[in-house]
Amino acid sequence: MGRHHHHRDGDTEEEHAAVVEQQVGEDAEGQPAASTESLAASESEPLGGTQSSHRLLAYSDALISIIATVMILPVAHTKMENDEELTQSIQLLLTTKIAVYLMTFLIVTVAWAAHIRLFQVIVRIDDCVALLNLACMMLITFLPYTFSLMATFPSNVLGILLFCGCVMVMGVIQSAIVLYAFSRPFLLNRHIQESENRAFYKHHILKVLLRVPLMCLFASIFSFILFQLSYVLLAVVIFLPYISQCVKWCRGKVIGPLEETPDSVMFYTYLPSEPLSKERVEAFSDGVYAIVATLLILDICEDNVPDPSVVQKRFGGSLVAALQAYGPEYLAYFGSFATVGLLWFVHHSLFLHVTKATRLMGLMNTLSLAFVGGLPLAYQLTHEFPHESRNELEAVQTSCVIVFFAGVFQLAIWVVALHNERETLHPSVRYGGPEHVFMLAKLALYPCVALGTFFLTCVLSRFSVTIFHLMEIIVPFAFLLLRLLVRVALALLRLLFCPRRGEPGNMEEDDTRVPFNPLVT
Amino acid sequence: MGRHHHHRDGDTEEEHAAVVEQQVGEDAEGQPAASTESLAASESEPLGGTQSSHRLLAYSDALISIIATVMILPVAHTKMENDEELTQSIQLLLTTKIAVYLMTFLIVTVAWAAHIRLFQVIVRIDDCVALLNLACMMLITFLPYTFSLMATFPSNVLGILLFCGCVMVMGVIQSAIVLYAFSRPFLLNRHIQESENRAFYKHHILKVLLRVPLMCLFASIFSFILFQLSYVLLAVVIFLPYISQCVKWCRGKVIGPLEETPDSVMFYTYLPSEPLSKERVEAFSDGVYAIVATLLILDICEDNVPDPSVVQKRFGGSLVAALQAYGPEYLAYFGSFATVGLLWFVHHSLFLHVTKATRLMGLMNTLSLAFVGGLPLAYQLTHEFPHESRNELEAVQTSCVIVFFAGVFQLAIWVVALHNERETLHPSVRYGGPEHVFMLAKLALYPCVALGTFFLTCVLSRFSVTIFHLMEIIVPFAFLLLRLLVRVALALLRLLFCPRRGEPGNMEEDDTRVPFNPLVT
Repeated sequence: MGRHHHHRDGDTEEEHAAVVEQQVGEDAEGQPAASTESLAASESEPLGGTQSSHRLLAYSDALISIIATVMILPVAHTKMENDEELTQSIQLLLTTKIAVYLMTFLIVTVAWAAHIRLFQVIVRIDDCVALLNLACMMLITFLPYTFSLMATFPSNVLGILLFCGCVMVMGVIQSAIVLYAFSRPFLLNRHIQESENRAFYKHHILKVLLRVPLMCLFASIFSFILFQLSYVLLAVVIFLPYISQCVKWCRGKVIGPLEETPDSVMFYTYLPSEPLSKERVEAFSDGVYAIVATLLILDICEDNVPDPSVVQKRFGGSLVAALQAYGPEYLAYFGSFATVGLLWFVHHSLFLHVTKATRLMGLMNTLSLAFVGGLPLAYQLTHEFPHESRNELEAVQTSCVIVFFAGVFQLAIWVVALHNERETLHPSVRYGGPEHVFMLAKLALYPCVALGTFFLTCVLSRFSVTIFHLMEIIVPFAFLLLRLLVRVALALLRLLFCPRRGEPGNMEEDDTRVPFNPLVT
Repeated sequence: MGRHHHHRDGDTEEEHAAVVEQQVGEDAEGQPAASTESLAASESEPLGGTQSSHRLLAYSDALISIIATVMILPVAHTKMENDEELTQSIQLLLTTKIAVYLMTFLIVTVAWAAHIRLFQVIVRIDDCVALLNLACMMLITFLPYTFSLMATFPSNVLGILLFCGCVMVMGVIQSAIVLYAFSRPFLLNRHIQESENRAFYKHHILKVLLRVPLMCLFASIFSFILFQLSYVLLAVVIFLPYISQCVKWCRGKVIGPLEETPDSVMFYTYLPSEPLSKERVEAFSDGVYAIVATLLILDICEDNVPDPSVVQKRFGGSLVAALQAYGPEYLAYFGSFATVGLLWFVHHSLFLHVTKATRLMGLMNTLSLAFVGGLPLAYQLTHEFPHESRNELEAVQTSCVIVFFAGVFQLAIWVVALHNERETLHPSVRYGGPEHVFMLAKLALYPCVALGTFFLTCVLSRFSVTIFHLMEIIVPFAFLLLRLLVRVALALLRLLFCPRRGEPGNMEEDDTRVPFNPLVT
């Protein structure tokens, strides 16, 4: 505040730097020799305090991805009895904890999407925005705990009040950020910065921003009267984007399309095709995959170091013998690390081809990640029950189902992207591009293998664990040799369906038709 | 392997794309209109499978930063007795665990530095490199566990063997990556790609790469004869860079400087000024700060949800009363989140001004991060002991010491950067630049406050916790108002030391001399 007055010419410098930077973003081709210089200058030089927001967002993504996955740990640490079938009470407890995990994941990703949206409008930051954002992050990281309270004491209003309190304070902080940024327009993105009705944008953004905190205010008031109603309201908050989308669509059908400011379509709509920063989707996914891949090693490091006295007493001082008891847990760790790592690898390959992410793709990604989060536990369970018991079979099959859905939702990202391929996909993987079949094979590998394993374990239930281990070992090699395999499969298909025709393009098989050209001939 | 033969013209395309991309990196000013197009194409288009390595490295950084900080959890979960002073056995246990944490942190960051070095040579990846790298990551994540075994069973060779085994397999995988990359030169960085003695580079890199695995092989052989010797060898591995640096320096003094290929200086030297990818230092630090900031919420979510039956029985159904017992833990969480967040903020501000990171700066950063890792626990301890006990005072003072060192090593990064400011710092913060004093104030705030709190608690030991809480509350506001405070302080200094002189430049105070100009006048 104070420095604004003391440092007036500094501010105009800031404004100048910001404008130069914006121009550079667009006109890089036009005046490169000068602009590369000034780009470097304005990117890193915090003239009077404005900074590129890139690292702030990366840090926020890291924090949010940790928080989204953290509630899987209470699920993991639920004690199971080894000898008998899962008792009713444990099943109930597990269901509650899994519900908390999924709710947290959903709410946190909603908060994350709102955060993306906010920082697509505010593209540069200064110290004040950075500190306010940190305060906001602190509140987000507290949300999972309020969910735990809600799940454990569903009829107590405290959990609801805490949750609503956090969301309302977050709303206030985010509004403060918006007001602050609009009072310093060089922080805004170029489109709004140059727009004449900046005030309209401000009101529109504030309106959308304060909708959720307002709902929470109602929820916290109603919680004293009828707490069930509060839960309904909170559920509405999560599905608000989809509901408002639906309402808008219906109204459009009934009374004709609304007159909209064409500008406003770009920001703060809830259209499924609204752009979502591709980098942030990647950063968030990386965070989740990294945490999930290492979840089991956290437990192993803490719990699987035997006590020296126990080793001396029970194993005659032989550490190897003592560690053999933990064998299955190491196996679970390596298996889940490999699976999560390979799912990351598929995700990484997919997003190399994606040029723009949309809200709908983000939703599919979130669903895929939610399943990935449960994977290490499912793997751990496969080794926890006595051999050839019903629980063991169930655990193996649950693992297959989780892997299947994690893979299928990755495939869904691709399908959604293909639906609008001109905007979202790189030419080389568009339907008919040379990499199309290969990408499809990468995406389909895990769902197919998981489905195959599932049905095999149904038929050969006695060998379920052996089949599962075989799958774990085979899949990494399948990925290494995938290009070769795809080519062999295509050649076989070609041999079967058109043994004589040399030219491509006349075939019935849709997916394999066009890529024949570069691959086989 | 197979696709190399099938797809020969694809490979030349790859080569072309890689070359184009490299040119773009250098000649962006020269031929911009065309090159921006081809940059976009070669960045995202995986023609025949080569890809930008950016996201692979980000994911690796995330994994490594989690693993580096994970061993703090066993330290955190050591049970303390509240009533008496720390008993000898617990102190020993704690010391062991802290040693394991520090060793892991050091070893993992050494592995991380080697990873950076490798991927400064290999700048593009394909599927095969990505999968090999994932295998390498899996082994790195297993290292902390081998350290736990070593610390718990120091005289048992199993821990040493496991550790050496992991390192040797990693060496083999990394050598495979190097050989693979040199067989596909379009994956290499431009300098080596265009160099005539590429074979020299290959041998040099392999030689440096295999040095550590070779030491581990010796260590594992010696472990059967005299296990103490193995530990010495492993310690040598960690300090190898510094030792080899020292030896080289001494030899240079005695027999005159060696004839070196001037090219080789850029890669795989262990000079303190060897460049370290700035982005990766940032990504790694972000990961560590994010994990550490959320460490306490992991515990809170799991342990601080009371059992419904206990609440009913002991607190008469009042959840608020039951949660009051956890009050100090929430406080510890918010305090540590704020401190870690603000230290991140300082780090972020500092690296905005840094244009190039060096090995020595990386080392200072690592040391700072190692202290940051212990911070949440220290904060937690401040609330765990009975009020006005000696343990409480010790915990508060330990917290101050940790904050102090975390801040001082951040300051050290800046001092190292200033030492070679033309290469490493942005002009605006170089000594005498307009932002110099402000940056210094940001960096000095935490060490000064921690030192002040430490001495205050020595004098007023009865109020240590109150003082500590006051510090936690005041510091965020100090950061918000820092620009104002710095200006006031400068004005005061000016008033005190040169009340009459209007011109700057004649003053004795080194740090404040030049910045007077833009700030005060």
